[in-house]
Amino acid sequence: MRMDLRSMAIQSRNAYYDLSVSAPESRNQALLTLADRLAADRKEIFSANREDLIQAEQEGLSAPLLHRLIFGEEKLAQVQEGLRALAALPDPVGETVFCHEITEGLKLYRVTCPIGVLGVIFESRPDALIQISSLALKSGNAALMKGGREALRTNQALLRSVRSALVQAGLPEDAVQLLETREDVAEMLKQDDLIDLIIPRGSNSFVRYIMEHSRIPVLGHADGICHVYVDAYADLEMAKKVALDSKVQNLSVCNAEETLLVHEAVAEAFLPPFAGLLRDHGVEIRGDEAVQSLISCVPATEEDWRTEYLDAILSIRIVPSLQEAIRHINHYGSHHTDCIITEDDRAAAEFLNRVDSAGVYRNVSTRFADGFVYGLGAEVGIATGKIHARGPMGLDGLTTYKYKLLGQGQTMAEMKSGVRHYVHHVLSEKCPL
Amino acid sequence: MRMDLRSMAIQSRNAYYDLSVSAPESRNQALLTLADRLAADRKEIFSANREDLIQAEQEGLSAPLLHRLIFGEEKLAQVQEGLRALAALPDPVGETVFCHEITEGLKLYRVTCPIGVLGVIFESRPDALIQISSLALKSGNAALMKGGREALRTNQALLRSVRSALVQAGLPEDAVQLLETREDVAEMLKQDDLIDLIIPRGSNSFVRYIMEHSRIPVLGHADGICHVYVDAYADLEMAKKVALDSKVQNLSVCNAEETLLVHEAVAEAFLPPFAGLLRDHGVEIRGDEAVQSLISCVPATEEDWRTEYLDAILSIRIVPSLQEAIRHINHYGSHHTDCIITEDDRAAAEFLNRVDSAGVYRNVSTRFADGFVYGLGAEVGIATGKIHARGPMGLDGLTTYKYKLLGQGQTMAEMKSGVRHYVHHVLSEKCPL
Repeated sequence: MRMDLRSMAIQSRNAYYDLSVSAPESRNQALLTLADRLAADRKEIFSANREDLIQAEQEGLSAPLLHRLIFGEEKLAQVQEGLRALAALPDPVGETVFCHEITEGLKLYRVTCPIGVLGVIFESRPDALIQISSLALKSGNAALMKGGREALRTNQALLRSVRSALVQAGLPEDAVQLLETREDVAEMLKQDDLIDLIIPRGSNSFVRYIMEHSRIPVLGHADGICHVYVDAYADLEMAKKVALDSKVQNLSVCNAEETLLVHEAVAEAFLPPFAGLLRDHGVEIRGDEAVQSLISCVPATEEDWRTEYLDAILSIRIVPSLQEAIRHINHYGSHHTDCIITEDDRAAAEFLNRVDSAGVYRNVSTRFADGFVYGLGAEVGIATGKIHARGPMGLDGLTTYKYKLLGQGQTMAEMKSGVRHYVHHVLSEKCPL
Repeated sequence: MRMDLRSMAIQSRNAYYDLSVSAPESRNQALLTLADRLAADRKEIFSANREDLIQAEQEGLSAPLLHRLIFGEEKLAQVQEGLRALAALPDPVGETVFCHEITEGLKLYRVTCPIGVLGVIFESRPDALIQISSLALKSGNAALMKGGREALRTNQALLRSVRSALVQAGLPEDAVQLLETREDVAEMLKQDDLIDLIIPRGSNSFVRYIMEHSRIPVLGHADGICHVYVDAYADLEMAKKVALDSKVQNLSVCNAEETLLVHEAVAEAFLPPFAGLLRDHGVEIRGDEAVQSLISCVPATEEDWRTEYLDAILSIRIVPSLQEAIRHINHYGSHHTDCIITEDDRAAAEFLNRVDSAGVYRNVSTRFADGFVYGLGAEVGIATGKIHARGPMGLDGLTTYKYKLLGQGQTMAEMKSGVRHYVHHVLSEKCPL
C-alpha cells in the first residue's frame, strides 16, 4: 500500500532538515555516485523504459512524444555528463552574501540556504527526473516529484537509482520522492505548512490550474506568448532571419514566437516577402485588417493575440508606433521573452526597459531563452512572474537566504540606553557557523 | 466622486512603466524635493494630523496608539533626514548583475529592475506613508497604499506633498496613490494582472486574510512567534539578560519573544531566578508541567505554543534536547526570528542551520530583527516566507531582474547547425541599454 501524501510530505520535510546540515562534499559525492549507479542499473532502467514505450505506442502517443519518452544509452550518457558537471559547480548554499558588524562584536551574516521542500511537476521526459533530483540535491532541497504518466515505470526505476546513491553518500533517501497520480498533486497543493515552493512544467492548462489552486508559492509559466517586433528602423534582412527562426526552428516550445508585430513604416516592404518565407515553411498566417490588405491570410481575432499556438501558425499585426508595440506586448503577452528588431539604440532602450518580460531581446531569436543557453547549467523551469526568480531558473532560483546573527549577549535595552552604539561596519568575513 | 480601484490600478501600472525608463537622478531629485516640500506643507500636514488626533481621542484610541499617530516637528525632521539618506544611496535598479557572451557578439545581461506595482497596507503610523512612498520611488516601483483609518487625513495631506514632489521632478504623480477603505483593499487583491506584489503590515488577522485571498504574491508576516532557547551549555547569566530583553524591551512588536524553551539540564538552575525577574517586570508565565513543578505559573495549553501574545505573557517549556527545541520551533514557530543561548559551537551550528527562520541568532536578543538595525536602510516589511526576500526587506526586496539579450541577428538554426558555437564567456560589462 502506498503512503498518503501528507506522510510523504512530512518525510520530505525531515529529509530537507537533514540536508540543511549536510556537507557539500556529501551532496557532490551523491551526484557522482548517481552517475555510476545509473550505468550499473541500466538494465532495469532500459527495460522499464521499453515497457513504457510499448504501452505508449499502444495508446497511440504521437511520434514526437514517443521520441521524447526514450531513455537509452544516448540519454544515459548525457545524463551522466550533466551529473558530473553539476557536481563540479560551486556550492550554491552556505555562501555568505554579506557581513555587517552591527555593534561591537555583534556580526550579522546573510547566508544562502536551500528553500526547503520543492513540489515539481514535469512533463513526459524521463531525464527530467534526474535533472530535477540532481538540481534539488545540489542546492540542499528535498523534492516531491510528479512526472508524466507515460513515463511512470522509467521514473520509478530512475528514482530507485537516485535513492540508492543518496543512501550510499549518507544522505536521506526521502529527499526525493515520486507522486503517481493527479490526485496526489491535488493533495500536495494543500500542504502549505510542509512544502515551500511548487514548480510546475508541462501543459499550460494544468500549470494554470496549479497556480490557481495553491497557497504555496508557484514559480513557472503557464504560457509562452513570445513576440517579435519589427521596428521602423529594422534591418529587414535581419528581421526576416530572426522572425523566421523564432517561429519555425521549433514549433512546440515555450520560447517560440506566436505573434509578429510590424511597424507600419516597413510593413509594405517587409510583409510580402516574409509571408512567402512563412508559406515555404508551411506556416499559416492570421493577420489584422492592415495585414490582410498586404498579404493573403486568415483574419485574426482578439483571441489570436492571447493564444500560444505551439504550432505552425503565426498571428501578425501592424502597429503605428513603437509605443503601441510595447503596449500590445505588455497587454497580451505572457512576460516570457520578447524581441525588437531595430538599428535604433533609443528604440531598443525603450523596448528593453518598458517591456515587462523576463527576457527582452534586441536582434536575436526568441529561441535563445533557455537555462543551458544562458550558461546557468541546467534549468528547473522558466518563470514568468517577477518574484524570486525570473526567466530560466538555475541553481540560484532554488536557494534563498537566512540572517545569522552571532552575539555575546547584546540586548536592545543596551542600544536604546546608549551603553552600546551602532557601528554598521561592512566586513568581508565568511559566517563561521 | 472617487475613481474605482481598477482605474487606479491601471494608472499605477502606467506610472510604473514611465518610472521604469526614468533616470535615477530624477528619482533622487524627487526624494530631495519631497524633503523640502514637507517642510513647506507643514501647516496643512500638522493641521490634518490634529484633526485625526482629535477624532481618535474622541473614539477612545489607547494612549500608545495615539502617540504613534502624532506627526509633528520631530517626526517631520526624522522623515526629512530619512529621505536625504535614501537619495544618497546607490541606485538599486539598472545594475548589471552579470554579463555572459553566449556566442560571438551575443551578450546576455542580467539587470536589476523594479518589480512593478506594489500594494502596501500599513498600520496607523503616518510616517509609514512617506517611508513606503520613498522606498518605492527609489526602486522605480509604483505604490497603491492603504494606511490606518485613524491617520486618513494626515495620509492624504502627506500624499499631496509626495505627488507634488513627483510632478516637480518630472515623474508621474500616479506612482503613489492612496486607498481609503477595506473594500478598496479587497478589490485590490483581485487585480492580479495589474499588481505585482502585496506587502501587508499590521494586525495579524488582517495579514492572514490577505495572504489567503489573493493570487498576487504576498511578502510579509502574519505572526512573529519568536523563541529563545536556553541550551544545556548556556551561560546562564547571559541567558537571563537576553531572554528578558527579548521579552520585555518592547512587548508589542513582532520581534519580541513569545516562547522560552529551556534544556532540562539547566532548568532547575535557570528558571526560579528568571521567573523572579519576569515577575519584577509584570510578566505572566504560562508553563508546561515540568515548568509548573519548578515555579508557580499558569498551566500552558497547546494553544499557547501557537500564540503571539504581543503582551506581558511568556510561555515556557522545558525540552529534553537541542533537537526537541529545534523541532518545537519549526513546528509551532512563525519563521521570524529565533535565538539559541549556548557556549557550544556545535549546538549553535545545528540550531542556526536547522531552524527554518528568517533570522537565526546566537546569544543576542530577538529585538535586533529590524531593517534599520541590520543596516539595510529603512525596511518596507519583514517577510517570513522563503521566496524572494526574507526577514527585514529593504530596497533589494523591492527589485527583481530581467535578462537583456543583445544580438546582431543570431538564430538558433545557426547554433544547431554548427555555423555558430557556444562560447559562454563571463564578461564584466555593464549593459549599455
